[in-house]
Amino acid sequence: MARTTGSDGERTEAAIREAALKLIARHGYDAVSMRQLGEEVGVQAAALYRYFPTKEDLLFTLMRDHMVGLIASWDAARPAARDPLGGLSTFVRNHIGFHVARRHSTHVSNLELRSLSPARLTEVLRLRNSYEKELRRILREGAESGAFAIDDVELTAMAIIQMITGVIVWFRPDERLSVEEVAETYHTMTMRLVGAASSTGVFRDTPTPYPSPLPAAGKGKARE
Amino acid sequence: MARTTGSDGERTEAAIREAALKLIARHGYDAVSMRQLGEEVGVQAAALYRYFPTKEDLLFTLMRDHMVGLIASWDAARPAARDPLGGLSTFVRNHIGFHVARRHSTHVSNLELRSLSPARLTEVLRLRNSYEKELRRILREGAESGAFAIDDVELTAMAIIQMITGVIVWFRPDERLSVEEVAETYHTMTMRLVGAASSTGVFRDTPTPYPSPLPAAGKGKARE
Repeated sequence: MARTTGSDGERTEAAIREAALKLIARHGYDAVSMRQLGEEVGVQAAALYRYFPTKEDLLFTLMRDHMVGLIASWDAARPAARDPLGGLSTFVRNHIGFHVARRHSTHVSNLELRSLSPARLTEVLRLRNSYEKELRRILREGAESGAFAIDDVELTAMAIIQMITGVIVWFRPDERLSVEEVAETYHTMTMRLVGAASSTGVFRDTPTPYPSPLPAAGKGKARE
Repeated sequence: MARTTGSDGERTEAAIREAALKLIARHGYDAVSMRQLGEEVGVQAAALYRYFPTKEDLLFTLMRDHMVGLIASWDAARPAARDPLGGLSTFVRNHIGFHVARRHSTHVSNLELRSLSPARLTEVLRLRNSYEKELRRILREGAESGAFAIDDVELTAMAIIQMITGVIVWFRPDERLSVEEVAETYHTMTMRLVGAASSTGVFRDTPTPYPSPLPAAGKGKARE
């Protein structure tokens, strides 16, 4: 990718990215033209092409860098020890914090896979898979150690990803809950979803048997 | 809305809706023109306007009818008795079945709220709220009866809706699991997420205390 070095060039590129994320999140990739983007940033469309030779180069860069940033944030946050409960807890909080801080980028990353050419779609899906594999690993290790009760690791990972990414659809930082409170509640829901018990409290409080007493039950099995 | 009666007109209108859902799901509302839609259906753009006077009338009709259909399917499926476990079970299965059968319509309904005018956005959100209120009612009744352990009814409802709607993102009917198997696994995950115990089995199998024994815990409270 052509890149103008120096701080003016970097500022321009950052402004292009920011404006592109906003416009694509609002109107969809197919509806946004390079001319419209140039107007938003205040540069000629010709100047845009020095940074991003094609509109798809721009989209791909945005989507790739979103996933690269997400993977880097997880690498920085992940616990050193092999600990399914701690790992899942960190994964959920990091994922929510990362996405809430990047609403436009998250929308674009979730909605515009349809707009990538096959080779670039493959590249973005490869990054996405390497991130989601981390969650599947945590779930599998938790199921194997007995910390979690999971029927299907793959479906559970998808369910958790969609549940925690969905926060950006409705969350607004100025409403009744802070992002930390939301992350805390989603953390508890995730721990219940995977049937976890922790050292600091069970995520299913002692149940009132309903409608009949709890039967004795065997261990959950991981199908994946 | 202008409507041509008789079977030819009905078939044309159905073809317009079907093509519009496909094109908007693929390219986004802003990128799809009435001319392009006319070409897809094989009618003049002028003929489209007899059915849908404006492009936004068309979008609104699609999004409203998606929600009206979803509410009708829930009304037909919902259990007569006040039974949180049965109600939640039916809600999850009905929601997954409805959406998996309507992938394009679900994409459009989830992505194009941004494209509605304020009055019509309000109308679609009102329908959406009346549907989601049913889930919140089930969760609240379950929390009150002790069948569920829920910290925050509103957040739990959002988490469940996003988790079960997300099935359409990855589910393909010709892959390893049938829609019934997927619905069954999501049903179990939902029951765990709300901390449910049922007459046919607990959704958290007897846990291996990890990393230390389970403390005694109080009842979960519903904050909403």
